[in-house]
Amino acid sequence: MSVNPEQRAEIDALRGATQPTRRATVAALEEILYEPIPVLDHGFVRVIDYMGDDGAVVQAARVSYGKGTRKVHEDAGLIRYLMRHWHSTPFEMAEIKYHIKLPIFIARQWIRHRTANVNEYSARYSKLQDEFYLPAPDQLGIQSSANRQGRGAVLDAAQAARVLELLREDAARCYRDYAWMLNEDDGGEKIDPERAGLARELARINLTLNTYTEWYWKTDLHNLMHFLRLRADPHAQYEIRVYAEAMLDTLRRWVPHTYAAFMEYQMGAAHISASGLAVIRRLIAGEAVAQPESGLAPREWRELMATLGRES
Amino acid sequence: MSVNPEQRAEIDALRGATQPTRRATVAALEEILYEPIPVLDHGFVRVIDYMGDDGAVVQAARVSYGKGTRKVHEDAGLIRYLMRHWHSTPFEMAEIKYHIKLPIFIARQWIRHRTANVNEYSARYSKLQDEFYLPAPDQLGIQSSANRQGRGAVLDAAQAARVLELLREDAARCYRDYAWMLNEDDGGEKIDPERAGLARELARINLTLNTYTEWYWKTDLHNLMHFLRLRADPHAQYEIRVYAEAMLDTLRRWVPHTYAAFMEYQMGAAHISASGLAVIRRLIAGEAVAQPESGLAPREWRELMATLGRES
Amino acid sequence: MSVNPEQRAEIDALRGATQPTRRATVAALEEILYEPIPVLDHGFVRVIDYMGDDGAVVQAARVSYGKGTRKVHEDAGLIRYLMRHWHSTPFEMAEIKYHIKLPIFIARQWIRHRTANVNEYSARYSKLQDEFYLPAPDQLGIQSSANRQGRGAVLDAAQAARVLELLREDAARCYRDYAWMLNEDDGGEKIDPERAGLARELARINLTLNTYTEWYWKTDLHNLMHFLRLRADPHAQYEIRVYAEAMLDTLRRWVPHTYAAFMEYQMGAAHISASGLAVIRRLIAGEAVAQPESGLAPREWRELMATLGRES
Amino acid sequence: MSVNPEQRAEIDALRGATQPTRRATVAALEEILYEPIPVLDHGFVRVIDYMGDDGAVVQAARVSYGKGTRKVHEDAGLIRYLMRHWHSTPFEMAEIKYHIKLPIFIARQWIRHRTANVNEYSARYSKLQDEFYLPAPDQLGIQSSANRQGRGAVLDAAQAARVLELLREDAARCYRDYAWMLNEDDGGEKIDPERAGLARELARINLTLNTYTEWYWKTDLHNLMHFLRLRADPHAQYEIRVYAEAMLDTLRRWVPHTYAAFMEYQMGAAHISASGLAVIRRLIAGEAVAQPESGLAPREWRELMATLGRES
Repeated sequence: MSVNPEQRAEIDALRGATQPTRRATVAALEEILYEPIPVLDHGFVRVIDYMGDDGAVVQAARVSYGKGTRKVHEDAGLIRYLMRHWHSTPFEMAEIKYHIKLPIFIARQWIRHRTANVNEYSARYSKLQDEFYLPAPDQLGIQSSANRQGRGAVLDAAQAARVLELLREDAARCYRDYAWMLNEDDGGEKIDPERAGLARELARINLTLNTYTEWYWKTDLHNLMHFLRLRADPHAQYEIRVYAEAMLDTLRRWVPHTYAAFMEYQMGAAHISASGLAVIRRLIAGEAVAQPESGLAPREWRELMATLGRES
Repeated sequence: MSVNPEQRAEIDALRGATQPTRRATVAALEEILYEPIPVLDHGFVRVIDYMGDDGAVVQAARVSYGKGTRKVHEDAGLIRYLMRHWHSTPFEMAEIKYHIKLPIFIARQWIRHRTANVNEYSARYSKLQDEFYLPAPDQLGIQSSANRQGRGAVLDAAQAARVLELLREDAARCYRDYAWMLNEDDGGEKIDPERAGLARELARINLTLNTYTEWYWKTDLHNLMHFLRLRADPHAQYEIRVYAEAMLDTLRRWVPHTYAAFMEYQMGAAHISASGLAVIRRLIAGEAVAQPESGLAPREWRELMATLGRES
Repeated sequence: MSVNPEQRAEIDALRGATQPTRRATVAALEEILYEPIPVLDHGFVRVIDYMGDDGAVVQAARVSYGKGTRKVHEDAGLIRYLMRHWHSTPFEMAEIKYHIKLPIFIARQWIRHRTANVNEYSARYSKLQDEFYLPAPDQLGIQSSANRQGRGAVLDAAQAARVLELLREDAARCYRDYAWMLNEDDGGEKIDPERAGLARELARINLTLNTYTEWYWKTDLHNLMHFLRLRADPHAQYEIRVYAEAMLDTLRRWVPHTYAAFMEYQMGAAHISASGLAVIRRLIAGEAVAQPESGLAPREWRELMATLGRES
Repeated sequence: MSVNPEQRAEIDALRGATQPTRRATVAALEEILYEPIPVLDHGFVRVIDYMGDDGAVVQAARVSYGKGTRKVHEDAGLIRYLMRHWHSTPFEMAEIKYHIKLPIFIARQWIRHRTANVNEYSARYSKLQDEFYLPAPDQLGIQSSANRQGRGAVLDAAQAARVLELLREDAARCYRDYAWMLNEDDGGEKIDPERAGLARELARINLTLNTYTEWYWKTDLHNLMHFLRLRADPHAQYEIRVYAEAMLDTLRRWVPHTYAAFMEYQMGAAHISASGLAVIRRLIAGEAVAQPESGLAPREWRELMATLGRES
């Protein structure tokens, strides 16, 4: 992770200062406020602000005069009820803001979650750093044949080494040429005074998709959970899943009752189709059901059996 | 305004307690946190939470490590620049939550602003109180003939008295019958033990549109300003404008630099059409331009002359 | 339902004229285009425009050159796959527009679905008609004690008659006074030339919440299904459910493959919590599980048993 | 532009077939339906579906029974009125869908417009083609010193040649290595049967940001105009502006009255600050105002003078 000494000093200064507030505060989240949590080889996630707590959810559900903000423990049941019945609006009443450093190809997936506010580092205004994502060797999966968008077994060592070499060399060369085209005197790259620099908004097009960018990303608790449900899922691409997992831990610190209900009713839950329910009823009745007479296609059958912890 | 002793005690308790936080805080807004600001005859607006300050706008514009959060004064220029050039995303990085009590017909206008989070008191769950909006006599305008959706001169005293009498009697009768249909034992209305009560979700349909409701309303700074630009405008209906004006004052306390830029570039600004600009150029050149040769329709001409402070 | 002769003539004219188009068309939906489907006592739903069909969903999933638009039948499987795995964006590629007449208290529920476009009849501009929703006697349920927002058994005949009388009289009186305050010469209500009329934006506040309004409501296929899943659900209030049911039928005409997948994977499906899945596994293994040792609260246990078609 | 013979045949087939519809149609837009409009070196924009016309805007503003759909010409005044007073909801009632081929760095700017529906070609599922954006030599601007995000004068011929050579070589090498890592037998690239292929979701990270992607992009008329106002503006980056300009022409064909109002009240209009209005009043009064006593900062003064067509 790339936090230089100057940034480290700023983070420490922010963490060292406290002010009194009449707002709801969450000690377990304050504990890690501003502190980068490392993700991938150069990335991080850090919480930089928040509004509300479990009590804000309860308060919204009750629309009363702040009732409930102080007796959260007995309100866990209400939060479970809201989660179970998909009452989403009370969860929209709490808000969180992250600062995230991530590779561009992940940023492209992430930005598809539209109900969030984003301010990204702009390579039209400023030069990007020479930082690229290079997968760890145990992440270099081959193309899965079962899943058109997934990975299967890991490449053998020789192939993995060659792939990493290509990724490293191509990213480095593209960056070097980017810097040459920019021809900026930024303390590192030596400027050629005889030569004009290409506009930043053009030079950047030479960078590879594994270049790191960063942004502020702010969303409400409901939409954060929607993001985590999709991106902390085992089917999500590994490189975004590790961000989601780091954020799951911030969720747990921030709103512990909501987190518990989220794990029970969303992350650990399953959606069963009408035909799937019919199969379950027959199985419970002691009937031996096999795929051909189940009314389910082979793939759906396998998914249902996996959900029920049975071999298919 | 209807804050009962129990609610008053809760507000005082919330206002009396402070906790330390590492987050940005705004003393001028903390000062009025939780405190209801009276609006209309029974309504109010109160800020119940917020996230971020002017520094959050600057920080987002810079996407740096918290730089700028401490030196807001010299950043006023950046905020003005952002406002002038309609850079909206940095203003989305601060958030505010209000508790608002308002008549239903105003809630119906308000809710059209979709980019906000809302939790409203539900008359399916709970009985509404017998509180109705009755306009002050000097607000009883006649139908404007110039503006199909506006009001003109005030009714004469006798008519105004009659109108108020009708509004008061109809609202009261509808509420009385609502309570009779509900037949709830809520401490006030006496229950008739011989009779079942109609479902709340049905009984409520008998209430008039001036009945008060309440909700939590949370939005980001950008969308708050969009709301205020439309609703604090002289063309907005009086009954929503008074809410917007009360909220303008909370904006001033919360983000003073953003507020100043908002007044300069939005509230006090004007949008001039292509043809309007052509007229202005001719006027500056000393030409005497009249509506017929201006290229503007009579109504547009009058609006432009008003913007320029000239008689039309 | 209130379609006057003039409106009837307009509808017939629109229905009588066809133009050639290169766009995808859906014959079964064209068949009912513009035609009001009656709902409640004075309301209706009618489809007034649409864009795309099942093929648009498939096309978006494939992002190809219009491939798939002509061979929808073999694409039913892809649509089922998308629905099963919550791939929502392809369903956002088709759009539909309704004209709806509905009571104001239902409009207030409906508008909470924010991802839609709405243009409502404005009582600031125009006078509303004297049409109110009066429930059929078999809908006059008493307040449910089990469900704070639901209804239980029906009122007895005498009480029901009294309730309907109150609803009718109060709505009628409020409307009469509204018209008196407006004092408009609209062909029906006689104007009093001696008296000014109150501004429409004020007079309307005297109307009851069961007054009918109307609007255009436009949304994409994904958000339409989200609306229908919540509002065609048995737990939704009856008065909005009947609209959702009428719209379900338009969904079936418009996108039959999507409709079938929607019924299988959404309307007829169930969401089972982590603890619920554990219970199901034990039941399938032949274990006799009772609520106390299930790990589920009594209410969740009852819901799970209902889902599994078992007595609890 | 890259439309291969197979795609050409499909487009021709779609264009050759018409069906009757009861919906509003727009002949001038049907004329170009499905037809790609070339943009940049390999990109295009093509309209693939639409819903509504100028009449839909008028109809929504009137919320009447389809009145107005047939007499658009006399409704141009209403459309101008709506545009002038920022009544946005009627413009949300018409919808359009584009198929767009564009470089990834432009897709990253474009996607920030959140109120739209998008389905993008997925490089997790399928291999991308070897097509990269290479600027025309007269677009190779140097970094502007006045505008941190803009370009100034064009590079001299020798430098331009070197920059293009780097861009071309780097993109080609990155693509070649991407294809090698994929090791797919797709008819072109020869597969090495001894070697496994890297997962597509990983291999793609080696591509440069000027690689072309494609997507379906659907939005309503209001949000389309918001997009065009920002992206057809002279301050927008050239590479997105050319897309916006091509789309402006589709707007003109689709909704000519809306287009005319848009040019008058948005594209050709100016937003003048409170202080700017004060300056204009003084100028019209014949006063000689210079920047120092204008109350405007030098940059704002220059912008105002430019708007007024005066030298600063």
